Amino acid sequence: MSEVFEWSRPVEFYETDLAGIVHFSVFYRWMEAAEHAFLRERGVELHGGGLGWPRVGASADFKKPVKFGDVVRVKVWVEELRTRSVRYGFEILVEGDEGVRATGEMTSVCVDLESMSAVEIPEGIRGKLGK
Amino acid sequence: MSEVFEWSRPVEFYETDLAGIVHFSVFYRWMEAAEHAFLRERGVELHGGGLGWPRVGASADFKKPVKFGDVVRVKVWVEELRTRSVRYGFEILVEGDEGVRATGEMTSVCVDLESMSAVEIPEGIRGKLGK
Amino acid sequence: MSEVFEWSRPVEFYETDLAGIVHFSVFYRWMEAAEHAFLRERGVELHGGGLGWPRVGASADFKKPVKFGDVVRVKVWVEELRTRSVRYGFEILVEGDEGVRATGEMTSVCVDLESMSAVEIPEGIRGKLGK
Amino acid sequence: MSEVFEWSRPVEFYETDLAGIVHFSVFYRWMEAAEHAFLRERGVELHGGGLGWPRVGASADFKKPVKFGDVVRVKVWVEELRTRSVRYGFEILVEGDEGVRATGEMTSVCVDLESMSAVEIPEGIRGKLGK
Repeated sequence: MSEVFEWSRPVEFYETDLAGIVHFSVFYRWMEAAEHAFLRERGVELHGGGLGWPRVGASADFKKPVKFGDVVRVKVWVEELRTRSVRYGFEILVEGDEGVRATGEMTSVCVDLESMSAVEIPEGIRGKLGK
Repeated sequence: MSEVFEWSRPVEFYETDLAGIVHFSVFYRWMEAAEHAFLRERGVELHGGGLGWPRVGASADFKKPVKFGDVVRVKVWVEELRTRSVRYGFEILVEGDEGVRATGEMTSVCVDLESMSAVEIPEGIRGKLGK
Repeated sequence: MSEVFEWSRPVEFYETDLAGIVHFSVFYRWMEAAEHAFLRERGVELHGGGLGWPRVGASADFKKPVKFGDVVRVKVWVEELRTRSVRYGFEILVEGDEGVRATGEMTSVCVDLESMSAVEIPEGIRGKLGK
Repeated sequence: MSEVFEWSRPVEFYETDLAGIVHFSVFYRWMEAAEHAFLRERGVELHGGGLGWPRVGASADFKKPVKFGDVVRVKVWVEELRTRSVRYGFEILVEGDEGVRATGEMTSVCVDLESMSAVEIPEGIRGKLGK
């Protein structure tokens, strides 16, 4: 497991639904936003160098709602680094409260954007992800 | 003004916000969905033949909310057909109620997808839009 | 396992991303739309009678992309009916192609909207879901 | 015209479309996010004290695309303060480039959330908006 990276921003109004809470589909968008911020911080170019990172799987468990007015925090780390894919772990919290609101996992595959087929993660990127 | 085309579908839960109504940004998505259905019906290929239709402007006036449980109806017509652009008019209603919930306008420019610069609307498409 | 219900609609332009395919978060919205259409067809009121159905978990595996121009089809069925929750199974396909694009699961809990705590699924709803 | 407030954040992947640029509907969400950050900074509670601020109109002109990798900046100011409504002006830019990508306007009405009817903007809020 790599070091944990944290991404954070205020919940937006358009992310809520009529139940008065953040819609569950938004949690997957936050997970991706955190993944991308993590990759940028590690110096891994997204959709550059002819490579892309489509997801092959994503899951989340929702424990407690997140609401408008909250500042959401997403913790992300590399759970497992495989030859052609990387599996991330996630925890979603809100500022000022230690209780976990949701947990998640997401597996992204390294693909050649030309052929859209899975390729081995280049050594340079591998090193950046593995810390 | 062209003949009016109508597009319709049930409001989805993820389109609502915590005020209990459809979020205003969703109306622009419906307007685009109606525009695209209109173009498909007229036989105008979207993002085909090297041409695209980005918007240069869009506006809407919101008169009465639309809610979950409603079936939204969008009326769309060509308000003005110019050399390089087309301006659409919209009315948003819900099934079973004649009151207009919102009105809108949207201007799409015909662009060469390679150069992303505006080009004259080809004669063949022009004829399909002008009816 | 209940009978399979099917929901379908054209993919919208705003559901795509710069990789040229439907964004993975949209699949969860389609799963919810299919769930809601299924419940409506069974005569189960959504967010009525003081009950709501928030998700406690959702997962999906993405096998092949869905694109603009496709008509998406979502098959949904009750995988497991528990005392307080229902677990749905999903298959996402596109019209004219028998290959499964994604599979998913989603677990919704029956809650009292006042207290937001899980309650037993009322017998009347139970019967409608169990067929 | 009030002082200009600025809101900023990285463009997210899920905000792009298959044309490779940010979808036009997202600009309205950014405008709202900037409006809300502006109101928070002025100490105006959103959807608190029984008041809400639904939009009655919103328009935007799109001059140049915004892309993934950009950090979007939204400038917002009170263009006109009326008895029951406030009209905001917007400019959308990206970091490191002085060119305006889009301009917009949005009118929000002060409503009693109970009756959903327009009410006079309370004097306390009026003072906070008028600076």
